Amino acid sequence: MQLGLVGLGKMGFNMRERLREGEHEVIGYDPRPEVTDVPDLEGLAAALTAPRVVWVMVPSGEVTNTTIVGLSKVLGTGDLVIDGGNSRYSEDSPHAALLAEKGIGFIDAGVSGGIWGLTEGYGLMVGGSDDDVAKVMPIFDTLRPPGPREDGFVHAGPVGAGHFAKMVHNGVEYAMMTAYGEGYELLAAEDLIKSPQAVYQAWSNGTVVRSWLQQLLAKALKEDPQLAEIKGYTEDSGEGRWTVEEAIRLRVPVPGIAASLFARFLSRQEDSPTMKAVAALRNQFGGHAVQRISESG
Amino acid sequence: MQLGLVGLGKMGFNMRERLREGEHEVIGYDPRPEVTDVPDLEGLAAALTAPRVVWVMVPSGEVTNTTIVGLSKVLGTGDLVIDGGNSRYSEDSPHAALLAEKGIGFIDAGVSGGIWGLTEGYGLMVGGSDDDVAKVMPIFDTLRPPGPREDGFVHAGPVGAGHFAKMVHNGVEYAMMTAYGEGYELLAAEDLIKSPQAVYQAWSNGTVVRSWLQQLLAKALKEDPQLAEIKGYTEDSGEGRWTVEEAIRLRVPVPGIAASLFARFLSRQEDSPTMKAVAALRNQFGGHAVQRISESG
Amino acid sequence: MQLGLVGLGKMGFNMRERLREGEHEVIGYDPRPEVTDVPDLEGLAAALTAPRVVWVMVPSGEVTNTTIVGLSKVLGTGDLVIDGGNSRYSEDSPHAALLAEKGIGFIDAGVSGGIWGLTEGYGLMVGGSDDDVAKVMPIFDTLRPPGPREDGFVHAGPVGAGHFAKMVHNGVEYAMMTAYGEGYELLAAEDLIKSPQAVYQAWSNGTVVRSWLQQLLAKALKEDPQLAEIKGYTEDSGEGRWTVEEAIRLRVPVPGIAASLFARFLSRQEDSPTMKAVAALRNQFGGHAVQRISESG
Amino acid sequence: MQLGLVGLGKMGFNMRERLREGEHEVIGYDPRPEVTDVPDLEGLAAALTAPRVVWVMVPSGEVTNTTIVGLSKVLGTGDLVIDGGNSRYSEDSPHAALLAEKGIGFIDAGVSGGIWGLTEGYGLMVGGSDDDVAKVMPIFDTLRPPGPREDGFVHAGPVGAGHFAKMVHNGVEYAMMTAYGEGYELLAAEDLIKSPQAVYQAWSNGTVVRSWLQQLLAKALKEDPQLAEIKGYTEDSGEGRWTVEEAIRLRVPVPGIAASLFARFLSRQEDSPTMKAVAALRNQFGGHAVQRISESG
Repeated sequence: MQLGLVGLGKMGFNMRERLREGEHEVIGYDPRPEVTDVPDLEGLAAALTAPRVVWVMVPSGEVTNTTIVGLSKVLGTGDLVIDGGNSRYSEDSPHAALLAEKGIGFIDAGVSGGIWGLTEGYGLMVGGSDDDVAKVMPIFDTLRPPGPREDGFVHAGPVGAGHFAKMVHNGVEYAMMTAYGEGYELLAAEDLIKSPQAVYQAWSNGTVVRSWLQQLLAKALKEDPQLAEIKGYTEDSGEGRWTVEEAIRLRVPVPGIAASLFARFLSRQEDSPTMKAVAALRNQFGGHAVQRISESG
Repeated sequence: MQLGLVGLGKMGFNMRERLREGEHEVIGYDPRPEVTDVPDLEGLAAALTAPRVVWVMVPSGEVTNTTIVGLSKVLGTGDLVIDGGNSRYSEDSPHAALLAEKGIGFIDAGVSGGIWGLTEGYGLMVGGSDDDVAKVMPIFDTLRPPGPREDGFVHAGPVGAGHFAKMVHNGVEYAMMTAYGEGYELLAAEDLIKSPQAVYQAWSNGTVVRSWLQQLLAKALKEDPQLAEIKGYTEDSGEGRWTVEEAIRLRVPVPGIAASLFARFLSRQEDSPTMKAVAALRNQFGGHAVQRISESG
Repeated sequence: MQLGLVGLGKMGFNMRERLREGEHEVIGYDPRPEVTDVPDLEGLAAALTAPRVVWVMVPSGEVTNTTIVGLSKVLGTGDLVIDGGNSRYSEDSPHAALLAEKGIGFIDAGVSGGIWGLTEGYGLMVGGSDDDVAKVMPIFDTLRPPGPREDGFVHAGPVGAGHFAKMVHNGVEYAMMTAYGEGYELLAAEDLIKSPQAVYQAWSNGTVVRSWLQQLLAKALKEDPQLAEIKGYTEDSGEGRWTVEEAIRLRVPVPGIAASLFARFLSRQEDSPTMKAVAALRNQFGGHAVQRISESG
Repeated sequence: MQLGLVGLGKMGFNMRERLREGEHEVIGYDPRPEVTDVPDLEGLAAALTAPRVVWVMVPSGEVTNTTIVGLSKVLGTGDLVIDGGNSRYSEDSPHAALLAEKGIGFIDAGVSGGIWGLTEGYGLMVGGSDDDVAKVMPIFDTLRPPGPREDGFVHAGPVGAGHFAKMVHNGVEYAMMTAYGEGYELLAAEDLIKSPQAVYQAWSNGTVVRSWLQQLLAKALKEDPQLAEIKGYTEDSGEGRWTVEEAIRLRVPVPGIAASLFARFLSRQEDSPTMKAVAALRNQFGGHAVQRISESG
């Protein structure tokens, strides 16, 4: 089928590729002239045959918001917008309402898979009405991995459900990565273990902890067995923070996910103010020596 | 090759099956007459041709210890004992030393895979000398899953390394299970999500969080979508506790694994003494109402 | 000085008492006729001499909001409103802006001390302009405990700073209560310890952990040595949740406070969905028995 | 009364001072000639009148063990040894048994108070028989702070109970310090707050979180308002580790104390291997840039 695609960055570019290989007609728009198929959103609307379907794949927050406002001006009744970016699920309802004023439908689609999606397919979690989802199903079927549809695609619920499911996916991802990280650190700390890499490799078949992330860590350790070239500094893109915030709203205890989020915050601090206070306290009551900046500088 | 196998419980029984299908000659001993091949350890030793290899697959702790002491009395120079149970790695050196006095070799083998190992193969992590491990390799190759040896088997280091790697495996397993559990609870708490089961199912292909455990949870949720029939009460078999204890010894921070362990402890309490104290404190300073046992009983 | 006081509940009633003992003229308003001094907010405004000062001590959220909107209609230029309730700090700026349109000043005041404040004085953390704070200082000086002003009162910064400081106070309070709760549970679990109460009592002098909360727990344990009459069920009033949310906004790792918050959530669950999922997983891969509801019911 | 005191370090030296001020006759032994009163343990035994009482105040572990073995050789029936150091409680029973062979009694005494004990008195938690504790009560009464005995002293139970109670005290201390540290970090991160020091100072009276540690942190922040001169690097002396280990043995969930312990481990790492693994994983699946050592060096 025909699809407009706004945003041809790392993710969008690959998705256009995969969709074209799947015999879809994709007209892409991106502000960068070297990748775009049309000059602007008006051009995109003009190039598509109504009822139009436009997939938005741009950074969450302000850029997504501006794009959807822009599309609300160039699209019309019967058209459909899909937000495939990492928007917070609570932004979906306002976007859907804005578009509904013009008779435009809305679907939120959480997309997992990163740079591997081009060849392996993307895991998809979508929210919206049954009718809207049905319209886009040929696109979803090409983007998702081959195999049974329900193994790589879910219509999770009404508008917002797709991004909520994707947010939880990322929260779980945070905690799994911490789990494997702690396992690696334990193996690396124990002299008996010849090669943490070999242990991680051997978890690939038959074990309870085998997974795609486990294999990726085995691969990363093969390339750099002591991770000597990699700093622990770790960004977070939002979903982990949102997961803990939503957990608080829903009164769901998430010690594992929260510990993973806090570990990321900590990884970006040069020194921990909390631990400076603890060191100061020990010094006050116990006369314990503290490491002073001036001594070590 | 020929193998003696002590312990024909849930694990040992299946392993004998898999090994016999792999054309090995397995002579099993178990105190239960209906499953055993020989009447006792003496009978086992007599039935095996020297140099004998005996795999011990009995509960860790006292039973494993008694079995190894028993084997030290009926085996002799050049024989080899493999402890395939969930022993704490620190018990391996004493066991190896005890057997070495009689010229008997020792290998510790961590075995993962549970009830699925019979058909899919077992993940194996072993510790011992190169020579001893080489002697048993035909057995390991039959027990492990098909495919490249390094994907389902690791000679992790000297005696103790196998059980240490298996212990870490189980610590990681604890944290992964908590991660998936938290994800399930979040999905179940949010009204937008029609079916947490469908979301978990859809994570099977293309997503970052796909894994064997993820698929098992999707399966469990298919059988009982709200886990209505299952209590949160969760035992721990030792490895999680040992992992945190070893982390403390090695000064490795393991917030994810520790949170998982504590969640299990908590799941077995009728009421939390910690939270009783917190409730009592709130009542003391704030006049906050507490729920009294006598009112609710 | 003269003060209007809106809200004569548990906190407001006691504050009126303490202020009157301090020779201030307090005119209180409350919807309950049996405690109010005036019939409504108009009556309150009429009874006060301009420039009027009105202290709001009502539940945070909707009630505080309605009250401040109401006061913006009956007060005028040069008057001053103090929000002494447990409002989220982010609500202070909108309230200040609303009142500023009418020339009315605003101070946010975090008040600690609970039911003990009447006799011991209240710990006060306030936000606002220097001029506004100076106007109310006689009231603050009567409400706060005797002794040096800086030991029981802080002008923490501009509007919002008072409630922010109070929110952090409550986050720290959560974590301290958990600390004492864990200590109690450990003492109660160890047979060597004759009386956890006696140990908590003995921490009152000379130890590093002595505090007001420690003494309250010793008192609570004296009344009910095994807390047999108290359930662990624990509400949270908002500040703990907000503290973790603000920590996420500020990228501050708060594992201690978050653990305390999650423990409260958990204390209100009949069974943990997370642990039901973990139990289901163990059953799936290990054939571990689960406790089924139907068996135990 | 008369007391032998082995170990005249930071703690022992001050205790000798406080006891002598309390009119006790203290004969101290220390390997350092400049502080000792007698040349060796034999000299100490000879200088004391039977039945002798000897207080051991030396580093826990090997030194304490050697000292107690040494005392078992120079003391005799009816004498009494008190271990006032930070020994692990599980070492007390073996020490008591060793001494009992010679008819020598044993008391374990947990001592809190640090450098402040000299002037304010020491918080004491002791374990032993009623008879033995009664013999030493005049010493305990001088060492403990003035006021009711039960507020600064507890006979917590049989041998081991004193050190167990002290260990829990230190575990609680860890979690309280983390609580105050997190509160400080939050206040310091929020621009609205003019001075975290002033807020901590203002918590001294009337608030729920007031405590000795709170006042010490206010003091430390007065000396160095941004803790600019202090590194977060924090040692742990053993009790925190033991508390978590005992919690695991007793199946007591201690998320607050464990988080505090792990924060200390982390504070001593240059980079976190766990977070290196997490960063490596993000790079693998998402093409997320990692900070490479070689780039930043």
